[in-house]
Amino acid sequence: MKMNSEKVRFMNISVLGCGRWGTFIAWYVNKVGHNVTLWGREHSINYIRLKETRKNDYLSLPEDIELSNSLYKAVSSAKIIIISISAQELRSFACQLNSINEIQGKTFILCMKGLEATSGKRLSQVFGEAVGKNIDVAVWVGPGHVQDFVNNIPNCMVIGSENIETTKKIVQELNSDLIRFYYGQDLIGNEIGAATKNVMGIAAGMLDGLNYSSLKGSLMARGTRELSRLLRAMGGNDLTIYGLSHLGDYEATLFSMHSHNRKFGQALVQGERFEKLAEGVSTVRALRELSKQYDVELPITNALYEILFENKNAKDTLEDLFLRPVKFEFQ
Amino acid sequence: MKMNSEKVRFMNISVLGCGRWGTFIAWYVNKVGHNVTLWGREHSINYIRLKETRKNDYLSLPEDIELSNSLYKAVSSAKIIIISISAQELRSFACQLNSINEIQGKTFILCMKGLEATSGKRLSQVFGEAVGKNIDVAVWVGPGHVQDFVNNIPNCMVIGSENIETTKKIVQELNSDLIRFYYGQDLIGNEIGAATKNVMGIAAGMLDGLNYSSLKGSLMARGTRELSRLLRAMGGNDLTIYGLSHLGDYEATLFSMHSHNRKFGQALVQGERFEKLAEGVSTVRALRELSKQYDVELPITNALYEILFENKNAKDTLEDLFLRPVKFEFQ
Repeated sequence: MKMNSEKVRFMNISVLGCGRWGTFIAWYVNKVGHNVTLWGREHSINYIRLKETRKNDYLSLPEDIELSNSLYKAVSSAKIIIISISAQELRSFACQLNSINEIQGKTFILCMKGLEATSGKRLSQVFGEAVGKNIDVAVWVGPGHVQDFVNNIPNCMVIGSENIETTKKIVQELNSDLIRFYYGQDLIGNEIGAATKNVMGIAAGMLDGLNYSSLKGSLMARGTRELSRLLRAMGGNDLTIYGLSHLGDYEATLFSMHSHNRKFGQALVQGERFEKLAEGVSTVRALRELSKQYDVELPITNALYEILFENKNAKDTLEDLFLRPVKFEFQ
Repeated sequence: MKMNSEKVRFMNISVLGCGRWGTFIAWYVNKVGHNVTLWGREHSINYIRLKETRKNDYLSLPEDIELSNSLYKAVSSAKIIIISISAQELRSFACQLNSINEIQGKTFILCMKGLEATSGKRLSQVFGEAVGKNIDVAVWVGPGHVQDFVNNIPNCMVIGSENIETTKKIVQELNSDLIRFYYGQDLIGNEIGAATKNVMGIAAGMLDGLNYSSLKGSLMARGTRELSRLLRAMGGNDLTIYGLSHLGDYEATLFSMHSHNRKFGQALVQGERFEKLAEGVSTVRALRELSKQYDVELPITNALYEILFENKNAKDTLEDLFLRPVKFEFQ
């Protein structure tokens, strides 16, 4: 797979966050021709390891990517800034960014999948509230495993924002044969879709763990359906859930051995310890909030909430959900 | 998993066709309490084996299921008749049935997934044309592996017809804890959805065989999308494609090792011989026909047609399809 080289690209782009995805993004953005700074917290394990070895479990960073722990430097030197941190930390991180005057006029891209657990807010909303309105914000969502990309296996992803010109500019700078970007046409749908695929991933893992993998078909049909109704209520396009940002990410989430959320769900029903909380758990809380705010019933989300937060038995709850005598599919 | 025993059921039901699905259906219908005759052609390998051993690779037939090679007897003795044969043979088989006067007033259920290759017609249309209009016809579609059902792993399926009373009557007679039936609400959508999932299964197998499994996410998003547009053009509900009969069958078709169509696609791109043609191949031809009749573009179907019938290179064609510079997802 050769990289798209229609033009020479050389823009200063910073990536904030050096976890699995942040580090991959830095690698990718460098690969398509830009000048990249990768920022991490000075004392984070990921940052220290990259600083010492320039490697993580997935890739090696080329020498021309600058590693920095100075947020000021990373922000002030770049025109486009990509953020990839834990979704629940975005508000406080954005407040920190807001104290840097140089953020004005820059374009921020949020490459993360989640919703604020306590409020149900989308990440572009959270970010906008913290940094004010004069900043361009876009999201980068859709399918793809880091493990595949670094082995040159391509995929399609989505850039979305409230401004199609911003979207087009970003796609122009980042598109390649390895990641084929589509223009997002519904920011609400892209953000809700991207966040909630993790919830369906947890449910899929539970079904796998209960030896009910074959019910993942029903999960796909009914899960997309309830989220589609939510999207419509929120003012998004109810078809977006069936696009790349949600359904298009199911292969990577519901069926992949790599999926963190799927593995979390499976471990949970099998009574195993799991090293860290999956992001989808926070998204279940956020969805519960949105379900109330918009008065939309979300049966699958609700079942997960009861299992995760109210100690209901997973097997009984999921059997009841999937095998209950509902007669009409579309109501 | 105990069977639903709300009521004592004891109706004469015949199953025509003793392949993998037909034999399973006979087993299932017997299990839910009915009096079952299973018909097969006298000289068919499946029939001879069942006659001699009462077993196939998946299950053993209980003694109270009658095996018969008399079509007259199977049809005349039953009130409900379930057909499970190769889709492309349905028209000639229905003509044969039409010569039996006793078919009048009976309910036929087509448990098969396909479209007539030469005309693009749905199976209920083909059947109706051959037997006339005074016969109730329903379809039984949706996810589920025989291998899972016989191990008591439940799933949700769909019964659809043009008459909701017929649908309800069938569901009442066949519903159980092992198969939870939903009422189909769009016969066109259920039939097109069920048939075309095999096409997406072949495409998924090709992606697997080319080491592009991660593109199955894009396939799901874009495949459902093009079929949804076709459905709308045909007068069906464009949401049905996202229900159990199509998207709900993706687990069993796009991701399962059991899926015949997926394995066919994989073997084909890997240059291996495959024992028998997959049903989805005929459906690709039928879709090509529908695409012309309804003037709807079907890019994925088209790509498969070129690979299967015009000898185009699968890798080039699929790369071009999934990685071409399309910019907007929903157009």
